[in-house]
Amino acid sequence: MTDLLKQKAIKRYIQNDAYAKYLGATVEIVKPGHCRVYLTITEDMTNFHGTTHGGIIFSIGDIAFGAASNSHGQTAVALDVNICFLKASKPGDRLIAEAKEQHLGGKTALYEISVKDEKSGALIAKSQNLVYRKREKFIAADEMEKRQ
Amino acid sequence: MTDLLKQKAIKRYIQNDAYAKYLGATVEIVKPGHCRVYLTITEDMTNFHGTTHGGIIFSIGDIAFGAASNSHGQTAVALDVNICFLKASKPGDRLIAEAKEQHLGGKTALYEISVKDEKSGALIAKSQNLVYRKREKFIAADEMEKRQ
Amino acid sequence: MTDLLKQKAIKRYIQNDAYAKYLGATVEIVKPGHCRVYLTITEDMTNFHGTTHGGIIFSIGDIAFGAASNSHGQTAVALDVNICFLKASKPGDRLIAEAKEQHLGGKTALYEISVKDEKSGALIAKSQNLVYRKREKFIAADEMEKRQ
Amino acid sequence: MTDLLKQKAIKRYIQNDAYAKYLGATVEIVKPGHCRVYLTITEDMTNFHGTTHGGIIFSIGDIAFGAASNSHGQTAVALDVNICFLKASKPGDRLIAEAKEQHLGGKTALYEISVKDEKSGALIAKSQNLVYRKREKFIAADEMEKRQ
Repeated sequence: MTDLLKQKAIKRYIQNDAYAKYLGATVEIVKPGHCRVYLTITEDMTNFHGTTHGGIIFSIGDIAFGAASNSHGQTAVALDVNICFLKASKPGDRLIAEAKEQHLGGKTALYEISVKDEKSGALIAKSQNLVYRKREKFIAADEMEKRQ
Repeated sequence: MTDLLKQKAIKRYIQNDAYAKYLGATVEIVKPGHCRVYLTITEDMTNFHGTTHGGIIFSIGDIAFGAASNSHGQTAVALDVNICFLKASKPGDRLIAEAKEQHLGGKTALYEISVKDEKSGALIAKSQNLVYRKREKFIAADEMEKRQ
Repeated sequence: MTDLLKQKAIKRYIQNDAYAKYLGATVEIVKPGHCRVYLTITEDMTNFHGTTHGGIIFSIGDIAFGAASNSHGQTAVALDVNICFLKASKPGDRLIAEAKEQHLGGKTALYEISVKDEKSGALIAKSQNLVYRKREKFIAADEMEKRQ
Repeated sequence: MTDLLKQKAIKRYIQNDAYAKYLGATVEIVKPGHCRVYLTITEDMTNFHGTTHGGIIFSIGDIAFGAASNSHGQTAVALDVNICFLKASKPGDRLIAEAKEQHLGGKTALYEISVKDEKSGALIAKSQNLVYRKREKFIAADEMEKRQ
């Protein structure tokens, strides 16, 4: 498989995220290790105080994290995430989560994620996310399956 | 307002969580500072590897955390959450998140959350969650509004 | 090696912690996966505000964590620690850190650590600590060396 | 007090950190919100595996964090720190911790800290650190005391 074909196969695999679709989030792979996710907050995504639910803010970041950490084609699973909530947001706001690789080791890798308000650029949350890198490369298997 | 009426008002307020309803989660207030959340995982709640999405596992815990930290009737907002993912789960599994207060200070409070598989009891994730306690008591205001 | 001999060898290895000795901390192995560390705070252990330094509070917990996570005789290395600081302490206070195993998996294990004031029992800090468990068993090697 | 005098007073206050002196660390204030700390690892700073103790790696970062978060002259106290350990180091290595402000709010502020090996530039650890900002400005008081 050429590198371009491999990148396309990885992109197809990563963008097939059921939960991202359920929320209505858009996933963009900038390059291996660097992804962005976009989501417009709806009334369904609020808590009892009427602001965006912490679970949603985490989820946008987590979708970007999952995409970035798996974008090398090797299966990565989340070990630990630490998130700081800095500013409230509300329905109608469009949020952008950006995940950037900080360290890519043999068995672990570290990502930094920021969640911002698209319009104002205000920082909503920031997280530090660690994965365990399995030996499996999901793309080879996926490709073989696809060709059958 | 009697203590019983206050507890009922707090319960009504906390159970009115749009995102919890959207996911189909059930919120139970065991007592002030101690809550449980139940959710059955669906296909919509999976990632591209086919397992339960990290955003969903965090969300169940976050709903329990929000309920527990606001169950005194005083507005509490999340400052920081650290979550360790210990075991994968899948569609059909019913998960239980349990939030327990570890420390209740004047300005901050700390909660410990476990997310378990209901059937096997296996620990899926564990988190440590910190809130900032605002001066506002949301119940007094809520009650006054309700009586008008 | 009998189980008792193995436990003694592990204890000897774990209590040979240069930094714990440098600080003057006492390390107690309650049982595999459960350790306690005691330290009396001195003037050298304060920050510029005159209270116990965050680095010292973390260190007591980290010594207990290292002891607990290695107390099975298998090499464990820290991956991630999240610590919440809840109350200040000062020179003269005697602090106790207690590490308890929450999850022992094949490749990772999770510990919960509390740091308390011995006299008042007040909670000073609480942390959640994750290790990666290497395949090496440090005790076999250590024992062989000792017998030569 | 002029701005220059204020900066000098803040620097004097921050560099008077007993624990930093005890370890032999050097504290540099690059500018408000941005600090560096240097420390050469000694045998006293190792764990029972012979590598640099996690408590020491955290401490270098924590000294930089305390300096950066208090460098505005307003008292800041640590709420939560999350640290990922990425690479081992050993006696003789000289480590640099660098703390940079990510968010400065009314009541909280967030810092990102990296700990690197000076020679190779390798990333040893990375942390995300949150403070609560008190209303007190420690410098005014400090200055008044000094002039009496």
